[in-house]
Amino acid sequence: MSEMRITQEIRLSTSGRTDILDLTPQVSRIVQESGVSHGEVLLFVPGSTAALTTIEYESGVLEDLRAAIERLAPKGIPYAHDARWGDGNGFAHVRAALVGPSLVIPFQEGRLLLGTWQQIVLLDFDNRPRQRRILVRLRGEG
Amino acid sequence: MSEMRITQEIRLSTSGRTDILDLTPQVSRIVQESGVSHGEVLLFVPGSTAALTTIEYESGVLEDLRAAIERLAPKGIPYAHDARWGDGNGFAHVRAALVGPSLVIPFQEGRLLLGTWQQIVLLDFDNRPRQRRILVRLRGEG
Amino acid sequence: MSEMRITQEIRLSTSGRTDILDLTPQVSRIVQESGVSHGEVLLFVPGSTAALTTIEYESGVLEDLRAAIERLAPKGIPYAHDARWGDGNGFAHVRAALVGPSLVIPFQEGRLLLGTWQQIVLLDFDNRPRQRRILVRLRGEG
Repeated sequence: MSEMRITQEIRLSTSGRTDILDLTPQVSRIVQESGVSHGEVLLFVPGSTAALTTIEYESGVLEDLRAAIERLAPKGIPYAHDARWGDGNGFAHVRAALVGPSLVIPFQEGRLLLGTWQQIVLLDFDNRPRQRRILVRLRGEG
Repeated sequence: MSEMRITQEIRLSTSGRTDILDLTPQVSRIVQESGVSHGEVLLFVPGSTAALTTIEYESGVLEDLRAAIERLAPKGIPYAHDARWGDGNGFAHVRAALVGPSLVIPFQEGRLLLGTWQQIVLLDFDNRPRQRRILVRLRGEG
Repeated sequence: MSEMRITQEIRLSTSGRTDILDLTPQVSRIVQESGVSHGEVLLFVPGSTAALTTIEYESGVLEDLRAAIERLAPKGIPYAHDARWGDGNGFAHVRAALVGPSLVIPFQEGRLLLGTWQQIVLLDFDNRPRQRRILVRLRGEG
């Protein structure tokens, strides 16, 4: 058993506007193909208008999460960021900062130790479609 | 000094309904008994209706946190998840996704580097009692 | 290439009251000076009234984030913590627990893999100026 480290990335297109994408299949594949048996995987999204978390990837729950995020940082109120820069995505910056850009998940025997109904998701809060990279850094014993 | 890694788990019963449990004694014991001197400990809760964070474990603060979470994702409003699946725990999924399932804490000389009034807590948002596992993965120098 | 681990800390003074400080220059310097080429850096703030996240460090966005946090856990409502202990910082505890104390960021060739407009920030929610320590634990290949 030796210490192993692998860095990969996932690239994907989003539609923005709290688009929620299931990353579990891609992360699972990276873990399986790495040959690392036990360890932990760090996920990080570069950018200030996207975030990572886990949730049951079911359309009802996703709609409910979007509604809660809308209450937390509504689209229809004035944002100082927009007043200064005219970007129109002030709400997206606030949402991303509150949810956070990083997540660490353990795995064992090449399998992510998620709950049965727990998926890894990217939330893209920006006000337009984006190309996103999610950095995946794996470490553990081979 | 050699690199060491230890995987353990904490098992506990919760009452659900934003039950907040202090995990600090169990995590501290795992760190102390590991023989690892300096390092970091990853905590992860499998499941989509529970989350981890740190807080002063004082009944007043816990009540205040529950009130804020109730404002964020109230019990008494309609949830699409419940309309579709009848689970009645749509609010729990939303809360768990916003707080998040993972936490990483450094330790030194066998002691968690928490603040004086800072405890590690599990928040169980589900609408019924649950058995929970918290995965604890330690890495560092022995 | 050998496994390397470095523990450092950043010390700073804050004004409290949702003071938001950019830690990116200090963290970048620690990574650069470590001689570790590829790896990940764990940031952790000891204490129950401060938190860490990433955001575009632009005064408009910071003002917008403060407004969202004020909606989430307003200063002007009663807190059970304050009723019991008279600290007057119940709101600060709740805010810190919701944002969270830890963050993990990957780096490559001595450079943090942040987005162009993404900075690492400390949020100090306490109701008075504080001295803060941020623990920085780096691991990777030299």
